[in-house]
Amino acid sequence: MALARAITLVEATHPGKQKQAQYLLTKVLQHNQDIEHHSFRGPRTFRIGLSGPPGAGKSTFIEVLGKFLTNSGHKVAVLAVDPSSSTTGGSLLGDKTRMPNLSCDMSAYIRASPSCGTLGGVTRSTNEAIVLCEGAGYDVILVETIGVGQSEFAVADMVDMFCLLIPPAGGDELQGIKKGIVEVSDVVVVTKCDGDLLPAARRIQSEYISALKFMRPRSAVWKPQVARVSALEKAGVSELWDLTQKFRQLRLDSGELITTRRKQLRLWLASHVRDHIMGRFQQHPRVRALLPDMEKMVMDGLITPGLAADYLLEVFVKGGRGDEGNDMH
Amino acid sequence: MALARAITLVEATHPGKQKQAQYLLTKVLQHNQDIEHHSFRGPRTFRIGLSGPPGAGKSTFIEVLGKFLTNSGHKVAVLAVDPSSSTTGGSLLGDKTRMPNLSCDMSAYIRASPSCGTLGGVTRSTNEAIVLCEGAGYDVILVETIGVGQSEFAVADMVDMFCLLIPPAGGDELQGIKKGIVEVSDVVVVTKCDGDLLPAARRIQSEYISALKFMRPRSAVWKPQVARVSALEKAGVSELWDLTQKFRQLRLDSGELITTRRKQLRLWLASHVRDHIMGRFQQHPRVRALLPDMEKMVMDGLITPGLAADYLLEVFVKGGRGDEGNDMH
Repeated sequence: MALARAITLVEATHPGKQKQAQYLLTKVLQHNQDIEHHSFRGPRTFRIGLSGPPGAGKSTFIEVLGKFLTNSGHKVAVLAVDPSSSTTGGSLLGDKTRMPNLSCDMSAYIRASPSCGTLGGVTRSTNEAIVLCEGAGYDVILVETIGVGQSEFAVADMVDMFCLLIPPAGGDELQGIKKGIVEVSDVVVVTKCDGDLLPAARRIQSEYISALKFMRPRSAVWKPQVARVSALEKAGVSELWDLTQKFRQLRLDSGELITTRRKQLRLWLASHVRDHIMGRFQQHPRVRALLPDMEKMVMDGLITPGLAADYLLEVFVKGGRGDEGNDMH
Repeated sequence: MALARAITLVEATHPGKQKQAQYLLTKVLQHNQDIEHHSFRGPRTFRIGLSGPPGAGKSTFIEVLGKFLTNSGHKVAVLAVDPSSSTTGGSLLGDKTRMPNLSCDMSAYIRASPSCGTLGGVTRSTNEAIVLCEGAGYDVILVETIGVGQSEFAVADMVDMFCLLIPPAGGDELQGIKKGIVEVSDVVVVTKCDGDLLPAARRIQSEYISALKFMRPRSAVWKPQVARVSALEKAGVSELWDLTQKFRQLRLDSGELITTRRKQLRLWLASHVRDHIMGRFQQHPRVRALLPDMEKMVMDGLITPGLAADYLLEVFVKGGRGDEGNDMH
């Protein structure tokens, strides 16, 4: 499948492959731009971020939502951001066996998180995978995160709408929800609203409704909502989708959807620079040649770390041509 | 006072002042090295990090410990790491009014946190302030943190010994203690061990003794201890000091004290590079000239943020001589 190969290409660390990937991405971006200019006065696609503590039933929910969407004629891509897999060596997210029905669906594409990399690296390849999925005709992109480190906030910065999934569980079990994550949520979805859990689900729903009242809304046209779903009974999914479409229309009409996407792009640029600049520094030939001596001088207490850092940065910035092997004179 | 002026110099952001500061620091480092070579087979000074949740009684404890030390003939410097003051515009820490007795003591020096800056910036100036205090003859350096962001971990990386102060309070009140902070503590100090709080203090002490058993010790020669003090009754302070001196001697004899200081110096070098490299990037004249157009192209969806970042980094690394205004041809 061409899309899978393209995403593998943007995840590659080999410089030659990265060049190919960037060429491909530029072509796809131009293609996406052409379609938007000819057919629609705003993004054709909708990107939804999904997060929640372990036990919130994310996979089950995504499978049910995904099937609902493909049955309604949408093409759905599911992408995962899971920097934790860099330490465990394998990803639990995006695993096709978690979503048996959706992974057999011809209108759905499920992509596991790359099995190695920092949050920065995973974020970059996920951002680029979103562009490729949209280029391949997927119109709803679900970006899922396991909630390790700052990954929820990274996901909130790459989607049009952020949903926090909460299981109907009390106090202690909700400790796993990161501080600040409710503030960036456009919709809080209480999952497992069925059977014995229904009373607890109703209680959690009203708790979140009260909590959200105290938070400053991120949008001028949208107040965060609390929805209830049951993946088991397939209840509330259609209502939740109507809610997301109301959100999308309001944000589109107010211009916020486009403004936010533009802001996100600028943010990604800054974060890519931040992530890659240290790699450039460490690979710089004159820095590499000087570093061991500088480290020794610092460790022997002969110069301060601050002074050594200033000197190495000077070499890095001023001696830029060093990596071509000739020094101009 | 010369020391205060010197620390103000290392905190300065003006390039000319920073140059002077680095010259001064190098001189002070050489002076410190000379003394160590002639008088002692290891560091003369002892650096203690102190952290704890709000309400742990840090100021009161530091005042009592500080007075105990100056009465025993030590010269004590108290430095604060408080990156939060960058947003509030003023620092609560290091405020002399918090420690009325110690601030009148001729053998003590109390320094407020610089009133602006990132964690990186505050860390750098605190590291350099430690060197200056040692150069000025202070032999016990107490580095205090309010525990915002990652500041405790930054402090744990700049001291010989890290103490976590815990008030005798139960469950919920201890939520403020950051995950992982107990693991980096060499001594846990239960404060306010007096009067009505004594039973609670004893319970907390035994809870921490059990908890520490499950943690992997950071040193081959030291197992983290739990001590009790009462600043009110001035009890336990002398015993705590004996404990820190036992720690210091064991670490000194095993060579760990010196190894750790060397490792910390290398760590600071890396973190200074990380903190300053982005500033260099943003100030680079060709990057500054290109950035607005690149940002616009990214926001218009014409190139990916990743590709734009790669291009800007290329300009930054290769076009280093741009800031001298001539391009060699």
